Amino acid sequence: MPVPGPGYSITVRVEAPPSANAAGDLTTAVGRTGAVITAFDVVESHSDRIVVDITCNSLSADHAEDITEVLEALPGMHVRKVSDRTFLVHLGGKIEVNSKVALANRDDLSRAYTPGVARVCTAIAKNPDDARRLTVKRSSVAVLTDGSAVLGLGNIGPEAALPVMEGKAALFKKFAGVNAWPVCLDTQDTEEIIRAAELLAPVYGGINLEDIAAPRCFEIEARLREKLNIPVFHDDQHGTAIVVLGALRNALRVVDKDLSGCRVVVCGVGAAGSAIIRLLRKKDPADIIAVDIDGIVHSERQDADEHLRSIAEQTNAEERTGTLSDAVRGADVFIGVSAPNLLSEDDVAAMNDDAIVFALANPDPEVDPLVAQRHATVVATGRSDYPNQINNVLAFPGFFRGLLDAHAHDITDDMMLAASNAIADVVDGNDRVNASFIVPSVFDTTVAPAVADAVRRVAVSGESATPATQGGAAGGTVVGAVAPGFAELDESADI
Amino acid sequence: MPVPGPGYSITVRVEAPPSANAAGDLTTAVGRTGAVITAFDVVESHSDRIVVDITCNSLSADHAEDITEVLEALPGMHVRKVSDRTFLVHLGGKIEVNSKVALANRDDLSRAYTPGVARVCTAIAKNPDDARRLTVKRSSVAVLTDGSAVLGLGNIGPEAALPVMEGKAALFKKFAGVNAWPVCLDTQDTEEIIRAAELLAPVYGGINLEDIAAPRCFEIEARLREKLNIPVFHDDQHGTAIVVLGALRNALRVVDKDLSGCRVVVCGVGAAGSAIIRLLRKKDPADIIAVDIDGIVHSERQDADEHLRSIAEQTNAEERTGTLSDAVRGADVFIGVSAPNLLSEDDVAAMNDDAIVFALANPDPEVDPLVAQRHATVVATGRSDYPNQINNVLAFPGFFRGLLDAHAHDITDDMMLAASNAIADVVDGNDRVNASFIVPSVFDTTVAPAVADAVRRVAVSGESATPATQGGAAGGTVVGAVAPGFAELDESADI
Repeated sequence: MPVPGPGYSITVRVEAPPSANAAGDLTTAVGRTGAVITAFDVVESHSDRIVVDITCNSLSADHAEDITEVLEALPGMHVRKVSDRTFLVHLGGKIEVNSKVALANRDDLSRAYTPGVARVCTAIAKNPDDARRLTVKRSSVAVLTDGSAVLGLGNIGPEAALPVMEGKAALFKKFAGVNAWPVCLDTQDTEEIIRAAELLAPVYGGINLEDIAAPRCFEIEARLREKLNIPVFHDDQHGTAIVVLGALRNALRVVDKDLSGCRVVVCGVGAAGSAIIRLLRKKDPADIIAVDIDGIVHSERQDADEHLRSIAEQTNAEERTGTLSDAVRGADVFIGVSAPNLLSEDDVAAMNDDAIVFALANPDPEVDPLVAQRHATVVATGRSDYPNQINNVLAFPGFFRGLLDAHAHDITDDMMLAASNAIADVVDGNDRVNASFIVPSVFDTTVAPAVADAVRRVAVSGESATPATQGGAAGGTVVGAVAPGFAELDESADI
Repeated sequence: MPVPGPGYSITVRVEAPPSANAAGDLTTAVGRTGAVITAFDVVESHSDRIVVDITCNSLSADHAEDITEVLEALPGMHVRKVSDRTFLVHLGGKIEVNSKVALANRDDLSRAYTPGVARVCTAIAKNPDDARRLTVKRSSVAVLTDGSAVLGLGNIGPEAALPVMEGKAALFKKFAGVNAWPVCLDTQDTEEIIRAAELLAPVYGGINLEDIAAPRCFEIEARLREKLNIPVFHDDQHGTAIVVLGALRNALRVVDKDLSGCRVVVCGVGAAGSAIIRLLRKKDPADIIAVDIDGIVHSERQDADEHLRSIAEQTNAEERTGTLSDAVRGADVFIGVSAPNLLSEDDVAAMNDDAIVFALANPDPEVDPLVAQRHATVVATGRSDYPNQINNVLAFPGFFRGLLDAHAHDITDDMMLAASNAIADVVDGNDRVNASFIVPSVFDTTVAPAVADAVRRVAVSGESATPATQGGAAGGTVVGAVAPGFAELDESADI
């Protein structure tokens, strides 16, 4: 059952009579609606009336409307206005572009802008790779969407997707110092999206695809990885797979099982599910069974399109058929990235001993975690009000920081596995792993640097042709750009 | 003759013997090359050697190389490295994206990101115009280029153009709080540039076209103005025209002439020249003569393309023919936006009494201002080392601030004239105008707010259908977005 939360926090400004019991009447009335009062402030006091702000967490927009009506109906009370704290946070946008350089006087201007900037432009024209050192490309990521599959809201279009992309950009900066900028494209045509990303690429050190509907998202990602010389990450696929694999490693430690002996059911074969399957196969479980809305995926399915045939090839070697319930019977691990309430209590009870259940559908999981817990040893969800929250923010900021630092051109499975191990290691040290603690908190600031470091190591060792720092010219000559010693010094300071 | 400037400032790190006269030897040697020493720092001191940093302004990259060689040749000296302060300013880029909202805890996260953000997305999906209140679109501008005509460097491509666009973004923020982001497109195809701008538009409240080669830039601007519902500004045209018109108004006051009685020669009919002509015509001078590389533009010119024919229609009613010298003879005003050293001293001498000469070619003007000064009463250039610098930074930050505040959809000539008057008024008040002070300093922080205010007034009065602040619902109901009183409060705080 839902509880009043800060996502639906409102402030109601009420004019009330100056009587001794006005405050009590107001708070009692609000409390009776089921809202939770978080603040009570008197903003005006007159001989004939007081004006108060009541801030409370409500359940929904309808609930907020109810609260207003209840207060308006109280004798002598008048609701002057209602403000919604969530909307206030978004007013004017959540991100901004700032200058990193001083522009206080002529000297500043002549270095940062004309005439000095001309020399920097010339250096990049001669050697385009210098853009990764001398411009924001050093640390910039495009958060690119077409607004076709935003959160659970579906196809709401590019303008309406912008608040999510801005939020993502804010998280990129907070956790990893990455300068991310929203790119919300006014098209849902695959070819146009691909071409737009190509045209934009000069400004960015990487592209994070976000909330683009399947199966379009697969083709866009694959084609862009071929065309661009900057890494292309699809958070719905790669971010989720990285965090799930990290959490699974620790969950298996809790139940003392090896993945190579486990049967794993993946429910949902969209962006997240297919990426999880691909990364799981790199780790070699005994058996993976994929399930979609029509049941177990197998090679004889009549409805199979190219995507489903590819899933069938990668899973279900024993060619099982049947329902989700058939799939989970005796399974060790359930990973749901599908829809609410698909898994019954009986299904969980029918799993193998010491079962692991990741019910990650948002906002409502495949099974109520409190129910799953009765039969499974480790339970995780995407929810913040239950232990073991599987949240992509554990992966994407640090992952991109590592890619950018390494001047990486591509993303590899090895990088993703390294990132998932880094996330697991943050919890795994010092015997901290237990059934309620298989992933770090989203606020654990050690996660992103650990992920960045892991990705950087793989990127540099795997891409020896393009090391993170370019070999410098000998000291003592004025080089085209900047002497190597200084460059490295300041570049690391910039991270 | 050029002088050593901060655009070519270098720091040379030298190992020297610990003798008493080492410092003197070094500074003397640097001084003899013509460089100007701005700092001398000892960074290490040992019994057998000292290490010093000599920072100096040089003339050019070659000059910097000379300095290094001279120091290396001194007995016992060794140049360890040379760093270029201009490049250091650009290292890692000059702009960054920051979060405006706190993300310190669960409550913050649930309002700025999931689940709270979903309600903001839904509100914008219902009313797309809300994106101008609830997202960065409120204050964002795309600084869009194809890298085809960057500064005086020509067609250097999108990566190499990025340092200029970042500099522009930094100026947008410093002077007007506008969040500008560089869009450097990897194409020089007119149709692709237009389409890319359309696709990107959802994130931006305006587009500033920059350094796109003529005549492509004209078509791109015209087509985008038709297609988009956000204003499209072409700085090379509109920014220059606004500042030139403002400066001309004050120059005419110095010489006590009316524009309506003046003959004005515009030399150069590219982006800047044609925009200046168009805006001049709104102010009604007696006569405008346009001149290009082949002489006076007239309707019988055999080489005339569509653009030149349009210029001919707007100018030269008397159908003069001839050279630039023919055009300026007896003219009151010369406005050069063309190439270096086209105007001779004799040409200036042949102008009408109390002539006004704007020689704006960069970096070298159409005529040396010190020479022009012998015969003209008011002289202006684009250079910072001479009085009356005509610089677009006086226009574009405030102009966009005004457009964004007014939620403007278009740019009109009236807005541009209002902006040019606002720039002129900053100087014009209190009898401050004189021959050496017809435009404010680029560092005068009162200019952008004055320009913004002027543009906002015209935009709001001219677009009464879309006022700056939308009429609110009655207080006391939970509105789809936020109660109007709060919204306006915070929105203005955001400016």
